[in-house]
Amino acid sequence: MSTDTEQIRTLIERWAEAVHRGDMAGVLADHAEDIVMFDVPPPQEGVHGIDAYRETWPGFFAWQASGASFDILSLDVVAGDDVAFAYALLRCGTADQDPDVRLRITFGLRKEDGRWVVAHEHHSFPDRSDPADADAVREAATDLRP
Amino acid sequence: MSTDTEQIRTLIERWAEAVHRGDMAGVLADHAEDIVMFDVPPPQEGVHGIDAYRETWPGFFAWQASGASFDILSLDVVAGDDVAFAYALLRCGTADQDPDVRLRITFGLRKEDGRWVVAHEHHSFPDRSDPADADAVREAATDLRP
Repeated sequence: MSTDTEQIRTLIERWAEAVHRGDMAGVLADHAEDIVMFDVPPPQEGVHGIDAYRETWPGFFAWQASGASFDILSLDVVAGDDVAFAYALLRCGTADQDPDVRLRITFGLRKEDGRWVVAHEHHSFPDRSDPADADAVREAATDLRP
Repeated sequence: MSTDTEQIRTLIERWAEAVHRGDMAGVLADHAEDIVMFDVPPPQEGVHGIDAYRETWPGFFAWQASGASFDILSLDVVAGDDVAFAYALLRCGTADQDPDVRLRITFGLRKEDGRWVVAHEHHSFPDRSDPADADAVREAATDLRP
């Protein structure tokens, strides 16, 4: 495992711990000024810039403090010399929610002055009401039959 | 704009065109054997490997052929020498769906034998029923008040 991969793995693990304990400085510590986040909720176009990114967290911190988990279950890192990406599966929810649901997060990173920073995050839960899924697909396929 | 960035931009634009016309060979042309996709719908753990990735497409192709769009509205690429990531916003839906909804896709790429391949994809729509959003957050924050 390369030093870059290890550095990124540690960065993401520390970030997740900071998210869980509501530590804003820890959450922002290794993030680029121009970060673009596709968050779980809207806005549709994503969250642009570190100031907007910061504003997304207080509500989430309150929810975490109410008893929700934010545990990394798997983390894969693919690192080059100065660009990298990583993707993780997390348990993120309260005790009364389905324990099999996974939060998926993808990270895009750049090395700036010898130090890795997160320039992109994409967070989502699988969507069980996907318009392209199951019933909608069957319906469309039926409509296409001659 | 670097040659790598141009190559990746072209790769993703061609892939999106192949998705829209239901061209399986085109969709798979530049994808790694070990691709991991976090798709819009479950499975919770994502889709692992090119065979499983291939199986996700026929239903989506049928839905596209029924009149849905798959148009890239913005595409940002961050490329190193042999690792890159990219993220895009797309219009993906039928004429009777909300035109302001965006499909977000993040791509992770590696260069193999001098050629870029997609090793990771993360697709999602913003989730308006996010458990950490709006009402749930307000409720949790209220519960935390002394």
